[in-house]
Amino acid sequence: MMRQLAQQADTKIVLLVLDGLGGLPMVPGGPTELEAAHTPNLDRLATEGTLGQTIPVLPGVTPGSGPAHLAMFGYDPVHYEIGRGVLEAYGVGVHVGEDDVAARGNFCTLDENGDISDRRASRIPNDIALPLVEKLQTIEVPGVSIEVQHVKEYRFVVVMRGDGLVADITDTDPQQTSVPPHPARPRSEEAGHAAGLFNKWIDVARKVLADEHPANMFTLRGFSSDPQLPKYEDVYALQAVCVAVYPMYKGVAKLVGMNVHNFAGDSPSAEIAALSSVWNDHDFFFVHIKPTDSRGEDGDFEGKRQVIESVDTALPELLSLRPDVLVVTSDHSTPARMRSHSWHPVPLLLWAPATHRPDKASRFGERDCATGGLGTFPATDLMPLALAHAGRLRKYGA
Amino acid sequence: MMRQLAQQADTKIVLLVLDGLGGLPMVPGGPTELEAAHTPNLDRLATEGTLGQTIPVLPGVTPGSGPAHLAMFGYDPVHYEIGRGVLEAYGVGVHVGEDDVAARGNFCTLDENGDISDRRASRIPNDIALPLVEKLQTIEVPGVSIEVQHVKEYRFVVVMRGDGLVADITDTDPQQTSVPPHPARPRSEEAGHAAGLFNKWIDVARKVLADEHPANMFTLRGFSSDPQLPKYEDVYALQAVCVAVYPMYKGVAKLVGMNVHNFAGDSPSAEIAALSSVWNDHDFFFVHIKPTDSRGEDGDFEGKRQVIESVDTALPELLSLRPDVLVVTSDHSTPARMRSHSWHPVPLLLWAPATHRPDKASRFGERDCATGGLGTFPATDLMPLALAHAGRLRKYGA
Repeated sequence: MMRQLAQQADTKIVLLVLDGLGGLPMVPGGPTELEAAHTPNLDRLATEGTLGQTIPVLPGVTPGSGPAHLAMFGYDPVHYEIGRGVLEAYGVGVHVGEDDVAARGNFCTLDENGDISDRRASRIPNDIALPLVEKLQTIEVPGVSIEVQHVKEYRFVVVMRGDGLVADITDTDPQQTSVPPHPARPRSEEAGHAAGLFNKWIDVARKVLADEHPANMFTLRGFSSDPQLPKYEDVYALQAVCVAVYPMYKGVAKLVGMNVHNFAGDSPSAEIAALSSVWNDHDFFFVHIKPTDSRGEDGDFEGKRQVIESVDTALPELLSLRPDVLVVTSDHSTPARMRSHSWHPVPLLLWAPATHRPDKASRFGERDCATGGLGTFPATDLMPLALAHAGRLRKYGA
Repeated sequence: MMRQLAQQADTKIVLLVLDGLGGLPMVPGGPTELEAAHTPNLDRLATEGTLGQTIPVLPGVTPGSGPAHLAMFGYDPVHYEIGRGVLEAYGVGVHVGEDDVAARGNFCTLDENGDISDRRASRIPNDIALPLVEKLQTIEVPGVSIEVQHVKEYRFVVVMRGDGLVADITDTDPQQTSVPPHPARPRSEEAGHAAGLFNKWIDVARKVLADEHPANMFTLRGFSSDPQLPKYEDVYALQAVCVAVYPMYKGVAKLVGMNVHNFAGDSPSAEIAALSSVWNDHDFFFVHIKPTDSRGEDGDFEGKRQVIESVDTALPELLSLRPDVLVVTSDHSTPARMRSHSWHPVPLLLWAPATHRPDKASRFGERDCATGGLGTFPATDLMPLALAHAGRLRKYGA
């Protein structure tokens, strides 16, 4: 439908994503993080524009960052999946090309029989894991190139590049102890070549790590390739750019065909300031603010509130660019009270002065969003709404 | 999706169903039955928790009890059907096993030519129908056993048990008068055996009833078997129990794998009191309150209001069990004003003190539910929401 209706227009859309924005009261009847925050600029936009709330994947379903972003970008997150290997690779800035196969690695401990005694190698810290990753980087397998990057503690990512590689391979992690790691097994005939090459690499790695302790081996999970997502330009006729600090979000943005703009600084105001230098070359701007989610995961209600306020403070600079459509929302909720992602609906503010229809709301907060004029709807419907308000969707039918 | 994400947790969910709860004002601008009721306990839960409304099947579609309960239990009522024969059998407490075929019977009147002159046999009362059912119970067909039970007035149910029975059989009710009843016709080759046996039984029955008046024959409708619904334990990883007074609701609960708890008494307070004896052995509790629907069908606004108040009065005993998630809702609306089931959205109250997100509502009523924080959504999404609030759904994707 979008491919059929999308049209060019001289308008600009900003999708300002405060990761994990949705929250919960810490005490019964109290405010959420967003409701507690002093946000005069957002409240003005809420008064002028329209509020609503989105369901990231399905009611009750708590999404990981991959599916949540895909949905917000308009892709059905149940149909389109980004494999764990690819997502982890993007998380540390490692590119996964169309013919590459990525996997997530976990260092583990094998006992004298070769059985796993600790699936996370005592959660070794970075300074012990890094030299091990460097050892793995020295291993060569003829016919392919292999990139290994440390992620955090016992986690790393490996990407294999070469001809005829297919990622349809089962995890080597048996998900239990007292058994040896599985070999990499192809799930289809085409994947046999790649599985064989990974097993060769694993065999050498086993010898290389044999004398280490506690991390004398690893398991691999989430073998995956570029999911070949439709691109923003093709689906929405948009020239899109991503302004984000964390590599993973830049990676997901690349997968849907956005350009990635690198800039100095990492604060919300630095991100918003960075918009001006790409303003003229693009018509869609994905701005990703991470620390709302991080403070939520920390259980830090006050910290999350402050991040929200810092975004509000930077908002006038964004508005001075005169976007035609500004969407302020999130990929999912991360209530400080729960210290984790959650399934709760996501607050949404749509501001498009030429066409927005005001509702009764006068503040940007969960309670107001619940009764907002846009109602409660699947996150995948957000992009068509933004395009419409930007005059970028043709009429359907006569 | 639920099979993939459901996980065990040490939490308990209560689904308190006031059948036909949704209502309408009797006078323009007046309160609905629920709004007119004095419900201090429900109002407190509404203030603390989150309201919303569900669509039972599709907007504008008035559901029967079967589809409405299936939807509320999380099964697409368009995909999964409980045949009328099976539903009627469960309504009078007759079990329909996996290999049985049930049909609903209507006594009718045949004229001297064998054509139907009255499709409901002058709606004969129970005391005339019962001896006829007893006559039918004496008929034997070699190779199968047959159970016949009276339902009400001119209605009865027949269940055939034996080997190789398939229910894919057309109604014998021609849905018009001045024609004879159809024979039972198989719609598929496999159903030929069962259709033949039903026709044998019908032929004997015709002779047995020949001298009766006005009910000298019957028609059969809704040949059906156990619909083989996925079970709560397999789909949701829940040990579920049903607390209900009416056989039909116990039957539907059995079809989705719930245990059925029998207890003394039939008032809402007796049902809630009965919960305590099964509390420790289960983690999902379906409590079905029938008289809200009955009073609605009677057009008895005041009576329906009083039933709602009696549930409210019994609520503290339920809360003393400390459920983690309490859902108060209905299968469909039965406005006293309409004296029938209706398509209107169904009021919903979700109370889960650890994770509910409060909205602006302070009363449990249709007007507050319409602007509640959960929005308006299909009834089939209710179970995932309840599971999420009980910590029983894993995160989706990385």
